Amino acid sequence: MQNHLRLLTPGPTAIPDRVRLAMAMPMIHHRKPEFKTIMEETRVYLKKLFGTKQEVLPLASSGTGAMTAAVTNLFTRGEKVLVTQAGKFGERWKQIALSQGLEVIEIAKTWGQAIQASDIEEALQQDKAIKGVLIQICETSTGVMHPIHEIAKVTQKYHVLLVADGISSVGISPAPLDEWGIDALLTGSQKGLMVPAGLSLLAFSEKAWKKTEQVEPSCFYFNLKAELKNVLKNQTNFSSPVSLIIGLREALTMIFENGTLDDLYQKHFALSQMTRAGIKAMGLEPFARNHYAWGLTSVAMPKGVNASDLVSLAAKKTGVVIAAGQEPMKDEMIRLAHMGHIDFGDMLAGLYAVASSLPHKPQGFKDSYMSIAMQAYENAPAYPKTAII
Amino acid sequence: MQNHLRLLTPGPTAIPDRVRLAMAMPMIHHRKPEFKTIMEETRVYLKKLFGTKQEVLPLASSGTGAMTAAVTNLFTRGEKVLVTQAGKFGERWKQIALSQGLEVIEIAKTWGQAIQASDIEEALQQDKAIKGVLIQICETSTGVMHPIHEIAKVTQKYHVLLVADGISSVGISPAPLDEWGIDALLTGSQKGLMVPAGLSLLAFSEKAWKKTEQVEPSCFYFNLKAELKNVLKNQTNFSSPVSLIIGLREALTMIFENGTLDDLYQKHFALSQMTRAGIKAMGLEPFARNHYAWGLTSVAMPKGVNASDLVSLAAKKTGVVIAAGQEPMKDEMIRLAHMGHIDFGDMLAGLYAVASSLPHKPQGFKDSYMSIAMQAYENAPAYPKTAII
Repeated sequence: MQNHLRLLTPGPTAIPDRVRLAMAMPMIHHRKPEFKTIMEETRVYLKKLFGTKQEVLPLASSGTGAMTAAVTNLFTRGEKVLVTQAGKFGERWKQIALSQGLEVIEIAKTWGQAIQASDIEEALQQDKAIKGVLIQICETSTGVMHPIHEIAKVTQKYHVLLVADGISSVGISPAPLDEWGIDALLTGSQKGLMVPAGLSLLAFSEKAWKKTEQVEPSCFYFNLKAELKNVLKNQTNFSSPVSLIIGLREALTMIFENGTLDDLYQKHFALSQMTRAGIKAMGLEPFARNHYAWGLTSVAMPKGVNASDLVSLAAKKTGVVIAAGQEPMKDEMIRLAHMGHIDFGDMLAGLYAVASSLPHKPQGFKDSYMSIAMQAYENAPAYPKTAII
Repeated sequence: MQNHLRLLTPGPTAIPDRVRLAMAMPMIHHRKPEFKTIMEETRVYLKKLFGTKQEVLPLASSGTGAMTAAVTNLFTRGEKVLVTQAGKFGERWKQIALSQGLEVIEIAKTWGQAIQASDIEEALQQDKAIKGVLIQICETSTGVMHPIHEIAKVTQKYHVLLVADGISSVGISPAPLDEWGIDALLTGSQKGLMVPAGLSLLAFSEKAWKKTEQVEPSCFYFNLKAELKNVLKNQTNFSSPVSLIIGLREALTMIFENGTLDDLYQKHFALSQMTRAGIKAMGLEPFARNHYAWGLTSVAMPKGVNASDLVSLAAKKTGVVIAAGQEPMKDEMIRLAHMGHIDFGDMLAGLYAVASSLPHKPQGFKDSYMSIAMQAYENAPAYPKTAII
């Protein structure tokens, strides 16, 4: 009663009422005409969202399922891939690649830093056997956004597949697949798309689809050629996660009926400006100093402040649920998400939740931190079209 | 998409998800056992809420219906009642009393001021024929709360019925019927009770029920003796507003499962401290300087600021819906409600909505107005048990 539950975690995110109501409608059968109509509409929206003329495949899996599907359909045992290690989810690409029997070359960066296009270029130049680059657009564990627009130029130049995990970036910041030359782009439903977890989305470039012809999928469940055949008939290969797809259709309708992708990206860019300004005005430091994500703000904890303790206190005191760091930064970082349905008012509550849960005011704490945050929100410049900060 | 709709109006107020979901359950019949169980539970909660051993009658009407029911069941044509005029809803008591053929004595106060117990005592002393005092607890048009606890002492002393409109106070600030000696207390569902409009609730003291024996109800629909007979059987006289009663049962469950009435009143008192402090830190003045309501804060507009314009701009810019004044103060006052489900985060958005919609910063505007508001919220003293500020 006292306080609302406000979910400012980087997935799951708050589900809009309209999506929840749509998902609460009676069950329909996934092989019948009504579902096919929903799929048809969803496909049109998804192509717009992913910036591609290719099909975007809906898979009944979490985001990691789509990552697995991409790797197991694009690469054959023994092929060499370049994996970027700059946070927890870079590590996941490596695990998936190894489990598929791929040879893994790593570029490691300190947590909090972005991979540079020049890092990728250097590696590709050194080893011409590399067939693909596996990377996150947004590394959710650190709040860093890698410069995918520039990296894609490099992978195109070297004729290497660029496989991008867009789990915390699709619907938040731009990464148009066709225009930028990304070869695989995927996301989960529970982040920018405002739907519960359980559905992932995956698109391949023409070049990537061509590569799948040389690969025998190693996992029965993730047979993307079969999924593609089905999606063209507004179907999925196996049982469709009907209510999640209905929810997604509603969420995409909300996105596109009231605005454009420009509006969507501008909103999240402005929320990131707001959150960063508020955090700085508290005397705290964003953990990702530049190349920051637009869907979450990571904050380094000052000495003597335990992130997990702060997160627990904030939830208890204010009802605002934020995230601590992830191993090995668990207790040294908090993460405030502003993806999906979150708006300025939720972020004001989030900033207050942080400020009022600090054991002491850091040096430089300004009482006007919320006004400073709102000024940054109001005065946010136009978002950079390349998504490079 | 950009901003959430935040309803900070003094009715209707936001409906909690749990209430909306409860109301969305399949329809049940109002003469069947399942409904009787719901009514039985609701009756227990309502007696707690109204602070009475008497029955609280649910009526399928707006709050004005319950006002009409009280007058038409308690007074006979030609009887004399004292009506307090200090805002729009005092005027409504007068209209209802006149339409019932009652003789009306008025105490008028400037809008923004509270009726004092001494005002009532003076009038009752002067005219011993007065049978009842019709008053608002909270005058929603001005944001003033009248000192009902003291007024009830006077009406008891003079053996006069005290009929209290608790539309913007029940579930927000205390007015226990039995303990204070109120004779009729009523409210609508769409304020502190977090249910859509269409249901009103009305309780009479033993003394009031005795008085109804001398009165032939003049309106067929509002026959409270018949309603009482029915409610004792967990029924209503006519068709029950089933979904509203199911919603009310859920809202009352929420109130009582997680806390006490003390917690509820403390929350709203603290929100009023927060809002008043935030408004003052903007260089604005609360319209009700003392004797203010705990469920809404009225704010006088500085010279040159049109309240209706500000309200429109705030909604457009921020999604926060607040109220302008009511005739004759329509353009000179705004009203921010913090009744029902509203929490500190909604009020932060509300304060920002006001601040950012002012055509210029008033003298004394402090950039830290939101922090000042939160300090007042955190440091709110224990609410006064008499509800007298």
